[in-house]
Amino acid sequence: MSESIGPDFLRRTRAPYQLDKDHHNPAPRPPLELAYPEDAGLITLPAPEAFGTPPLDLRAALDRRRTHRRYGEQPLSLEELSFLLWYTQGVKVVTRRPSTLRTVPSAGARHPFETYLVLNRVTGLEPGLYRFIATRHALLALDTTPETREQIFRDCYDQTQIRTSAATFLWVAASERMTWRYDDRGYRFLFLDAGHICQNLYLAAEPLACGVCAIGSFDDPRLNATLGLDGEKNFVAYIASLGKIIQPTG
Amino acid sequence: MSESIGPDFLRRTRAPYQLDKDHHNPAPRPPLELAYPEDAGLITLPAPEAFGTPPLDLRAALDRRRTHRRYGEQPLSLEELSFLLWYTQGVKVVTRRPSTLRTVPSAGARHPFETYLVLNRVTGLEPGLYRFIATRHALLALDTTPETREQIFRDCYDQTQIRTSAATFLWVAASERMTWRYDDRGYRFLFLDAGHICQNLYLAAEPLACGVCAIGSFDDPRLNATLGLDGEKNFVAYIASLGKIIQPTG
Repeated sequence: MSESIGPDFLRRTRAPYQLDKDHHNPAPRPPLELAYPEDAGLITLPAPEAFGTPPLDLRAALDRRRTHRRYGEQPLSLEELSFLLWYTQGVKVVTRRPSTLRTVPSAGARHPFETYLVLNRVTGLEPGLYRFIATRHALLALDTTPETREQIFRDCYDQTQIRTSAATFLWVAASERMTWRYDDRGYRFLFLDAGHICQNLYLAAEPLACGVCAIGSFDDPRLNATLGLDGEKNFVAYIASLGKIIQPTG
Repeated sequence: MSESIGPDFLRRTRAPYQLDKDHHNPAPRPPLELAYPEDAGLITLPAPEAFGTPPLDLRAALDRRRTHRRYGEQPLSLEELSFLLWYTQGVKVVTRRPSTLRTVPSAGARHPFETYLVLNRVTGLEPGLYRFIATRHALLALDTTPETREQIFRDCYDQTQIRTSAATFLWVAASERMTWRYDDRGYRFLFLDAGHICQNLYLAAEPLACGVCAIGSFDDPRLNATLGLDGEKNFVAYIASLGKIIQPTG
């Protein structure tokens, strides 16, 4: 068995500078989002503030949260999907730098993630692979062939909760947005940030009677290839399946 | 500038196995918590369920959350500290394996974190460095000399929010609890898990009118040495300062 990468990773991702308020990288600031075709037809999502949710105290949401690997047959509404995308990656403000302030924290407000979605059951949307365009609060359809969804399922070692989910969130790190500011220490921050996002998904699911299963095991080279990602600059960092909770009968 | 560790880290932390439900490591299962002296006097924390908090809808908490780097002078009560520790690392169940189910998710329920605390202003507690003993929901005083708190402050590049915080949480990865199950892929999961925890701290702070600042920049070798950690097996992965929000006057 080869030596662990862990100690080397920790050593090589030490903070390379004393906290320097004036740190400025002369390299061009990476764009806020990965590019997409200008003529792409975006699917505008309903405004999250127009969508009412049943009241649920924070503490009850924190208490109830657990992992759900089995889901009911009910679809998500487009409003529900919009709500979940808002509270995981919603852009509240685009600053002049430019950078974004979102519903989750990110080291240095770098917000290095793109949200890819496998949608199996969302009312009004053809099943397929989509991308969330956070600055527009809109969806971009990438691939609606059944083969691609099936391939993603296989790339994740056939974990059934992806196949049976109403929607599966795939958080793709656009690592340059983070390393531009933090060099290699940014690789720690990418995973920390993905954890913030996933925890918000767990909690935002609660008032919708949805359940979540965080997924960290997948075949990186295959899955990145299926999504058209190079696997180095841009790669899947974390996944979560989501669907309606099966209520106990009786 | 040397080559980035990032691509190598991603390659070396690929899932080393197809998802194997029967995966069993013949090495002894690491204990649920790092050891502490048997005769250590633990400070029992108030039961979190006995502590009432003002109602706050989940959605309002998600909307309000932002980073706070300045804090008021008011101390935290012991009940408030207990509440925050419960919703970041509280042990709901110890299973027979044994493993723990906590208020946050963790890959394979490995729960690899220990919570160290710099307490500056908590009613009834001497300022100092403490450790949360999650299985007992209790505190262990480690060092109440002012010099140690000052050293931790310096090890974190003099970030003022640590000095002015009522409490600063330092999440220490006991990495063997994670790598025992997931080998080197566990290094991704450690940081993902720390993100879950920190996001819950941000949210649990809201009903207490507290604010949080997540901190990822610190001098690893110095800080780990100050805390008595080897920096390889056990190391600080993430930090968050917390204190009462300064309310706008007028």
